[in-house]
Amino acid sequence: MTDVKAICPRFHTAVELIGARWNGAILRAVLDGQHRYADVKAAIPGVSDTMLAARLRMLEREQILERRVLSSAPVRVEYHLTAKGAALAPVVDALAAWSHEWIPVPA
Amino acid sequence: MTDVKAICPRFHTAVELIGARWNGAILRAVLDGQHRYADVKAAIPGVSDTMLAARLRMLEREQILERRVLSSAPVRVEYHLTAKGAALAPVVDALAAWSHEWIPVPA
Repeated sequence: MTDVKAICPRFHTAVELIGARWNGAILRAVLDGQHRYADVKAAIPGVSDTMLAARLRMLEREQILERRVLSSAPVRVEYHLTAKGAALAPVVDALAAWSHEWIPVPA
Repeated sequence: MTDVKAICPRFHTAVELIGARWNGAILRAVLDGQHRYADVKAAIPGVSDTMLAARLRMLEREQILERRVLSSAPVRVEYHLTAKGAALAPVVDALAAWSHEWIPVPA
């Protein structure tokens, strides 16, 4: 055996968080300025309400998104990035840049 | 409806690729200089042989890793990043930096 250093479990947790299906797309939508449920949903073709709601709850629990209930009439709910979530912008940007260079445009 | 722009399917593909369980860890191990199967495996606590082999094949199919069979005795197999794979370094680095700032050290 060589002196291989093990992957940091914190890195692993971060990958799983970003990589969980739809989470990357949700982050990108909110970073792009979509804050309302319907707008986030519209930005992510193919996501179901059940899944989107579950992911939003997951990201809220992980303190990446903050859910704000605005006392307008009717009541409005918005999702905003926390500082922890906003700090993911460089990750999302790097992924976007890579995908534009290396992933072919779907036919 | 507002004029929400849909998430680019290329971005989505990239997230799914990096986020598929173990792929981020495998990329990090190879970027860290682990090229042999046993060393990659040693760098990723908890991964099974079945899963690691499947993921290596997936990354090879996606042209992120290149499998090299070296004609030594015994024959040696190594995994190296392609140009497409090496271009993921900024993504892995950004994720690592974020995880070190925001994910608590496991107890």
